[in-house]
Amino acid sequence: MRIHIQNPPNDPLFQFSRAMWDEAAARAPDIGTGHAVTIGSTDADFAAAMQDAEALVTDTSVVKAQFPCAAPALKLLFVTSAGLDKLAPFDWLPQGVALMNNRGTHEAKSGEFALMAILMLANRIPEMTTNQRAGSWQKLWGSVLAGRHITIVGLGTLGGAAARHAAAFGMHVTGVRANPAPHPDCARVVGTDELDAILPQSEFLLLASPLTDATRNLIDRRRLNLLPQHAGIVNIGRGELVDQDALCDLLDSGHIRGAVLDVFTPEPIPAGHRLWTTPNLVISPHTSADDPATYNPRSLDIFLDNLRAWRDVRPLPNRFHPERGY
Amino acid sequence: MRIHIQNPPNDPLFQFSRAMWDEAAARAPDIGTGHAVTIGSTDADFAAAMQDAEALVTDTSVVKAQFPCAAPALKLLFVTSAGLDKLAPFDWLPQGVALMNNRGTHEAKSGEFALMAILMLANRIPEMTTNQRAGSWQKLWGSVLAGRHITIVGLGTLGGAAARHAAAFGMHVTGVRANPAPHPDCARVVGTDELDAILPQSEFLLLASPLTDATRNLIDRRRLNLLPQHAGIVNIGRGELVDQDALCDLLDSGHIRGAVLDVFTPEPIPAGHRLWTTPNLVISPHTSADDPATYNPRSLDIFLDNLRAWRDVRPLPNRFHPERGY
Repeated sequence: MRIHIQNPPNDPLFQFSRAMWDEAAARAPDIGTGHAVTIGSTDADFAAAMQDAEALVTDTSVVKAQFPCAAPALKLLFVTSAGLDKLAPFDWLPQGVALMNNRGTHEAKSGEFALMAILMLANRIPEMTTNQRAGSWQKLWGSVLAGRHITIVGLGTLGGAAARHAAAFGMHVTGVRANPAPHPDCARVVGTDELDAILPQSEFLLLASPLTDATRNLIDRRRLNLLPQHAGIVNIGRGELVDQDALCDLLDSGHIRGAVLDVFTPEPIPAGHRLWTTPNLVISPHTSADDPATYNPRSLDIFLDNLRAWRDVRPLPNRFHPERGY
Repeated sequence: MRIHIQNPPNDPLFQFSRAMWDEAAARAPDIGTGHAVTIGSTDADFAAAMQDAEALVTDTSVVKAQFPCAAPALKLLFVTSAGLDKLAPFDWLPQGVALMNNRGTHEAKSGEFALMAILMLANRIPEMTTNQRAGSWQKLWGSVLAGRHITIVGLGTLGGAAARHAAAFGMHVTGVRANPAPHPDCARVVGTDELDAILPQSEFLLLASPLTDATRNLIDRRRLNLLPQHAGIVNIGRGELVDQDALCDLLDSGHIRGAVLDVFTPEPIPAGHRLWTTPNLVISPHTSADDPATYNPRSLDIFLDNLRAWRDVRPLPNRFHPERGY
């Protein structure tokens, strides 16, 4: 197959190299060999490759910059992000091209970040950093995780990894997703229509769902107020899942005791924005899911896994469904 | 046995109650029943009880305030702290009284705090909080724990729990202790005399040893400089284990990339102290080990376990050795 990998022009940390491809191909010898692989980073590289490329591996910034375009042989488009909400609406996608996201790449890093964030809330680190900023020593007592209640919205790669860690530490995990099928690491899974009943028992709320029409502003001001006094919040999904201004208000008032957020509206957070001075909040600059040391190799493994499914005429594990949004 | 429990007068969060004792006794029916148990909090309570108490359960502040004193029947003194360095020298201890510390109570809480702190360093949270203070959005990429090297100084309750978590996440764990016997969660254990050879490979250094003459200033300026560029440090032992001023210098220079510290010299940290403004540092107010919800019940379980050993004329599991300092 003719495979083209297009690196974004200005992202030195996340560049695919020939050596990375060769190593990934060696890890999957049944599907990794026998391809004509090109790697480019300029507009000219892209245009030349698209004359006959059958598969394209690239990131959202390249897709946004280059599509729609002529790609007469293209069958497979693998985008190296898990959330493709920035590419909606998907009218730029050539007819008959199978779009894939990078679901799965982020599991280890995101899972560890999620566990860290939950532990930070249980140990009251967001309050401690606020006291530290004020130069004020105040004893604050935290707790162990065992027996405490966490609600995880979204049980995909990120939410699933978070649920696994939380369950391993003895937490009582409630999952929330569109289709409330059981999950091995959740004591209970409910649909989003039952969220109002679950929130009052949620000592910790972790948001890990994709951004879709159904999840935008899902955690609005009314729902934030349903959380119990002293609840903690983690968001590793998208900033638009939550009413950010209401969240800041509740951190100001102390109703919500702490938050660890990796995603915001907008990003980057502008200078002078109230988020920078909201108390009991720890800000991570939307890097929770990505580990430069493992990201690209893992992405290629996932791409090759999908290429194997394509060859074998099986459903693509990472097929993205524009109509669902994930 | 006549057992007296003396609560410190001004510590509402950590008070023993009659109900706590009854519940602990019910958990250990073979040793918990048949005792005459008094609970007090005033000087008069203490003086009255010491007329004939055979066992005393109390904290370091009470011991410091009340001893030496007449305690003619006393055989067992159980102090509800793990580190008793504040009670040295031990010339106040009545002849023939077996002193015990609270080793083991802190395992779950300290272990989770230690894991959290390691994850915070791997995810670069200390740098992120410094950027947040400055209102500055800067992408910082962390890594997963698997394969990374951590050195843990002290393999008692705290260090052992940290080692267990670190190993479970695939870290390469080197333990350091006075007697370098193997440890199930360490790839390798060395004596403190080999510390200089280990430090240059220590991406993370976690201090969890008791404060003794042998460990005071163990991590001095010279040894801090042996750490690799961008190392991270956690201290859940005692502030005096490390040259705090040198540590601040190396955080200022960036040689040490981040630190999560729970213990300091002095405590509380005074207003205006350089620690409050040292970059890439997260300050926890010496509460990492204690969970008010579980601390006292767990302490009573440990005391009863020692009482059982005493009855059965076995060595006391929590016997404190003044000459060793732990």
